[in-house]
Amino acid sequence: MQTERVARRADGVRTGVVDARAIDLCAVRRRVDGVLEDFLAEKTSAAAGRGHPPEVVDTVRDFLAAGGKRIRALLCVVGWHAAGGDGEARAVLRVAASLELFVAFALIHDDIMDDSDRRRGRPAVHRLMRARLGDDERAERLGAGGALLVGNLALMWAQELLHTAELEPARQRRVHRLFDAMLEEVMYGQYLDVMGTGRGADDVEAALRIIRYKTATATVERPLQLGAALAGAGEATMDVFARLGLPLGEAFQLRDDLLDVFGSPDGACAPGLSDLREGKRTVLLALGLRGADPGRRARLGQLVGRADLGEREAIEARTILHATGAREQTERMIASRYEQVLRVLDGAGFPQAADRALRGLAVTATRYTS
Amino acid sequence: MQTERVARRADGVRTGVVDARAIDLCAVRRRVDGVLEDFLAEKTSAAAGRGHPPEVVDTVRDFLAAGGKRIRALLCVVGWHAAGGDGEARAVLRVAASLELFVAFALIHDDIMDDSDRRRGRPAVHRLMRARLGDDERAERLGAGGALLVGNLALMWAQELLHTAELEPARQRRVHRLFDAMLEEVMYGQYLDVMGTGRGADDVEAALRIIRYKTATATVERPLQLGAALAGAGEATMDVFARLGLPLGEAFQLRDDLLDVFGSPDGACAPGLSDLREGKRTVLLALGLRGADPGRRARLGQLVGRADLGEREAIEARTILHATGAREQTERMIASRYEQVLRVLDGAGFPQAADRALRGLAVTATRYTS
Repeated sequence: MQTERVARRADGVRTGVVDARAIDLCAVRRRVDGVLEDFLAEKTSAAAGRGHPPEVVDTVRDFLAAGGKRIRALLCVVGWHAAGGDGEARAVLRVAASLELFVAFALIHDDIMDDSDRRRGRPAVHRLMRARLGDDERAERLGAGGALLVGNLALMWAQELLHTAELEPARQRRVHRLFDAMLEEVMYGQYLDVMGTGRGADDVEAALRIIRYKTATATVERPLQLGAALAGAGEATMDVFARLGLPLGEAFQLRDDLLDVFGSPDGACAPGLSDLREGKRTVLLALGLRGADPGRRARLGQLVGRADLGEREAIEARTILHATGAREQTERMIASRYEQVLRVLDGAGFPQAADRALRGLAVTATRYTS
Repeated sequence: MQTERVARRADGVRTGVVDARAIDLCAVRRRVDGVLEDFLAEKTSAAAGRGHPPEVVDTVRDFLAAGGKRIRALLCVVGWHAAGGDGEARAVLRVAASLELFVAFALIHDDIMDDSDRRRGRPAVHRLMRARLGDDERAERLGAGGALLVGNLALMWAQELLHTAELEPARQRRVHRLFDAMLEEVMYGQYLDVMGTGRGADDVEAALRIIRYKTATATVERPLQLGAALAGAGEATMDVFARLGLPLGEAFQLRDDLLDVFGSPDGACAPGLSDLREGKRTVLLALGLRGADPGRRARLGQLVGRADLGEREAIEARTILHATGAREQTERMIASRYEQVLRVLDGAGFPQAADRALRGLAVTATRYTS
């Protein structure tokens, strides 16, 4: 109910979560989380009624509660405002919540495929499932199976949130078309990523293509467009979001890759080992391999992709990535994409509140993300 | 175009795929396959246009072409007729096709979770993906990841077929509600199966519960209800299908379990090793463990679940399952469920053509399935 209070101005006029000056992104986030909580509470009682194990819903709830910036949900609501959305936000909040369940699905499956140990500061879901199975010798495989199914349910529930958003038919068709396209893009991007791992790791273009399909459209373009579609936006607005989505989504992912390897300059995010151990085909790595002399190139190739990579070797890899200029080049790529985002926004003529929110999210996503 | 000819009577009146006497199930199957072919052809050209790898669509197409009885699709169309569906069958064929893409998804994921080698006489999809990766040391894990994504796309496409069926809004909501419920039931059933493997293998009730959630509703009840919903059926018809779904779905699965271990009496289906090697918690196995004396029980426990189980040990396991009466008991369970199906149909008063088709499918599914 906190969110309802935030959503009213002092004069008592109901404004949803926006007024002429600013969109209250914290309030949006709370309302999206509220939709998710209510939906999962229904799933919990349905599971109890049918004798289904309660831990599936609990696992999804814990996953959502453990973190995540809800960037897609926020972009969806901001896209709605940018396209003139106003008044009762029920449908857009439901679609925004759906996006976050979709992200949960994608990350749970991603962690299985990458065999990651941790996510959002907790054991990855397949590790949690494995722990449930005790000392069964097949616990590793079965735990992955359990997590696979939890991920599938998160995806199905994301779709159910859409199906039950009670949209007007033409809007529903448009929302489904965008959502289906997003799902397909992400799956193809992940497919390229998984089936191409270990090959052509110095291919900067291939690494950017993977970002493009796996992350860029799903992180920025489609969420903005989904919100805009709910406000009945025309093709011109959809096109602005397409032009915004690629640079902002790429910048977002490039920052994520830098943070994973080097941590954040302010120390809030510690450097990690996961991308290096996985041999993730990032633009950063491709630039490093391409820019290195033969000796360093060979050494970098030896270091990344080793599942047992230690902190000492990680420091060595980071030193090479720094010395080849790969880190600096990635920073420049982020900065040029951020500039491009501002240029697109300058020409878009969005309402002031939406424009400000988009600029704020662009800073958050590309500079201070952790 | 063959299907169109089949769908016309000699007098030239368009009748879809049904007349007063009989539903032409072969024609229904061809038309469903036609919908799938057209849909996947669109996906192929979309992938080509966007630079996505063609093998994803090809893999789904090959999977569908390799076999499958399309029992769910047929039941969906028969359910539509039973509820008075008539005339243009476009929407029901699309929903029926959606069910087959859902089955493809479920089986591709099932094979990953069970680490099965083969499906429908060909290597399982994760094996095909692994072979694509050559001698990469991570080929096993990455191949499973590739198959996971192909399965996800099959699920997403199943939903897309529904979203684009151009249903009238109230019907669409009803179809989505049934479809979402089916997906959830199957996932929970698989979850119970995966996370419970190896525990309480002599628990007949637990094995039946897994069938119930994993197979029974999704194989019979929901497909029939989806078809009926498209014909605007009332609650009474939905209820008949619920009462039909459980015995028919259970009988279907019990027959499948018998066929896997013992093959078919006519020799068309050879006995296999996969359920025994996997230690699948079938009713057959639970009955065998429960009915055996301590010595045989211990031996059966040693044999099943061994990944390297050979033909000689399989014969030993089959002999125990036969000697304990488990095989015969399972046959009796199938027969009593078949009788129950007939009793439900006797009281249902469905149109003659639909009634006959349902009786025919009941025989096919419980007696001669392979």
